[in-house]
Amino acid sequence: MKKLKNTKNKQYTLFTPGPTEVPDFVLQASAQSLVYHRESNFSKLYQAVNEHLKAVFKTKGRVFIFTASGTGAMEAAVANLVSRNEKALVAICGKFGERWKELLTRYGAYVRTLDAPYGKTINPQELERKLKTDDTIKYVFTTLTETSTGTLIDIKAFGEICHKLNRLLIVDCIAGLAADEFQMDNWHVDVAIGASQKALFTPPGLSFLACNDKAWQIIEKSRNPRYYFDLLIAENFHKKNQTPWTPAVSIFNGLLAALQYVTKKGIEHSWQRHQTIAEYVRTYLTKLNIELYSEKPSNALTVVKMPEYIDSTKIIEYLKNKYHILFANGQAELKGKIIRIGHMGLYDKKTFAQILNYFTQVYQKMLKK
Amino acid sequence: MKKLKNTKNKQYTLFTPGPTEVPDFVLQASAQSLVYHRESNFSKLYQAVNEHLKAVFKTKGRVFIFTASGTGAMEAAVANLVSRNEKALVAICGKFGERWKELLTRYGAYVRTLDAPYGKTINPQELERKLKTDDTIKYVFTTLTETSTGTLIDIKAFGEICHKLNRLLIVDCIAGLAADEFQMDNWHVDVAIGASQKALFTPPGLSFLACNDKAWQIIEKSRNPRYYFDLLIAENFHKKNQTPWTPAVSIFNGLLAALQYVTKKGIEHSWQRHQTIAEYVRTYLTKLNIELYSEKPSNALTVVKMPEYIDSTKIIEYLKNKYHILFANGQAELKGKIIRIGHMGLYDKKTFAQILNYFTQVYQKMLKK
Repeated sequence: MKKLKNTKNKQYTLFTPGPTEVPDFVLQASAQSLVYHRESNFSKLYQAVNEHLKAVFKTKGRVFIFTASGTGAMEAAVANLVSRNEKALVAICGKFGERWKELLTRYGAYVRTLDAPYGKTINPQELERKLKTDDTIKYVFTTLTETSTGTLIDIKAFGEICHKLNRLLIVDCIAGLAADEFQMDNWHVDVAIGASQKALFTPPGLSFLACNDKAWQIIEKSRNPRYYFDLLIAENFHKKNQTPWTPAVSIFNGLLAALQYVTKKGIEHSWQRHQTIAEYVRTYLTKLNIELYSEKPSNALTVVKMPEYIDSTKIIEYLKNKYHILFANGQAELKGKIIRIGHMGLYDKKTFAQILNYFTQVYQKMLKK
Repeated sequence: MKKLKNTKNKQYTLFTPGPTEVPDFVLQASAQSLVYHRESNFSKLYQAVNEHLKAVFKTKGRVFIFTASGTGAMEAAVANLVSRNEKALVAICGKFGERWKELLTRYGAYVRTLDAPYGKTINPQELERKLKTDDTIKYVFTTLTETSTGTLIDIKAFGEICHKLNRLLIVDCIAGLAADEFQMDNWHVDVAIGASQKALFTPPGLSFLACNDKAWQIIEKSRNPRYYFDLLIAENFHKKNQTPWTPAVSIFNGLLAALQYVTKKGIEHSWQRHQTIAEYVRTYLTKLNIELYSEKPSNALTVVKMPEYIDSTKIIEYLKNKYHILFANGQAELKGKIIRIGHMGLYDKKTFAQILNYFTQVYQKMLKK
């Protein structure tokens, strides 16, 4: 792993499923003196970031960049596409799928769901069956990498079905982008969402919405109240390689440095790098009979299921205090029951050999208690 | 001025009316290794920033922090307060006043305006007269510092009138906060908006909404579609010193360093520092018979009016290329007709003595042509 700078108050290295640890060369790039966002130097920066992001999403469509968390870009998708009382199907297998449902409900959509239990993925055949029984479903919303459970959804199959049945497919790729294979155009994905702080190892603050022409035609007609996330306003500035509102210029600087690294060898290399670490982590843990939570694990993180008598909160606290490494707990009803180990970003196997050694020591000590 | 780091591609120092030049100690603070936003180290950071911001707004009310440009926080004010068909009065003397009008229109409000010509401020007596003739106006939206023209609005008088006539007063303080005097609670302002990249000399990416209990009671009842900027969701996390969505942690780190500097001697000192520079700039220019654009200038920037036969675009380009200093042009119909010189942030008189010398040399050369 690249050498990491330490904060006065920080006592750990991040292995959380985003934000990830940001390497020093990205932090230093983000600490450059700022350019003015209505000036040609910013337009060059914007254009470069935009081109790199197209390569990351694997799209020839438009990419918009928001100064906002990933949830902001998710709201942009809903607010710009879906009009009141239109029908959307949300394929849900965790908390981030549920976020789509909440957003759509807020914006007055008529929402159907296709649910899989936490830890399971969604069967594309069930999607096809559901869509065939209801012609009025116009949109399908789902998630590439469900970080609450560490589960991957088969977006390629989703895309084929939606394309065949002529529904719009909108995918939250925030956690999976650059970690799990994703091919927006080839897989017939109409709208895809991403963010800076995951496998692109940049500080949080920027999020992305990529869309194709089919989606754009709907966006041009939608009339939901929106302003900050309005893509028609954004498009007018995008043409000048600018953003409508003052952008987080320092994070643009950091992101460019990270993207140059990521796309230098092609995005496929970034997927491969994440897959190598993910397989190493999973093999290491299963050899020790440690149970994985997800039936279809993502390359972005590994989720470990605790035996009933072990509270994951204690393990996480212990690892943080003793070994200065931070894993993430489960959210809501999964708190205390799982541990989420993030490996999105710029880590290497050697780092994971060391932290998994710490983890299994603590885990096995707890087992014996 | 604190020593400024230079970017490889950047060929100028910013004297734009936001973003401002960010001093090296703030850039370096923002380049610290990141903490996890669901962990106690972030909560400490959040709480510290929040307390400092209360001192900056001079309020005992709630302060919310968004990962978004200032316009995002403006949208939060509209989306959380104003329900469809409610009536709002917008006091407008420039582009940022117009932004309130656009936002309110998008959200279905019934909008009245009180307009002053560009370069003029708004007479509080006219506000009082307008409100007295229409009891159904529930909200007054306006701007502390109108950066498109460099004009200050008398918010203290606005607050007294709105308080007396029982209307809610919402003020965009983005450009003026910490530069022009502003006392939220004492002046009876119900909602105030700010951002990181102006007189708080931090990179752009964070914006703020401060509100009192009177505003909060309305927010709790409003039903506009919103999610990312929903203050009821934010309040649940605010209680834990967290944000609902992944925050721009690196900018929080920078902002804390800047706020510690700003509030160390009290916010009054920051107003005074800006006033000293502003008066110096205005005196310097008027002595040379250079015309100021605004009848009621703010401490955040000075706007210079060009004689009809001089194109400000040429002067700005020349100063950038020859002296590596960047001023801002007028926006829309004011392009080419004015120059906006930002002095919000951490500048000193010596710096301005130098750049005003450059500016007047170029200006006088153009006059002779």
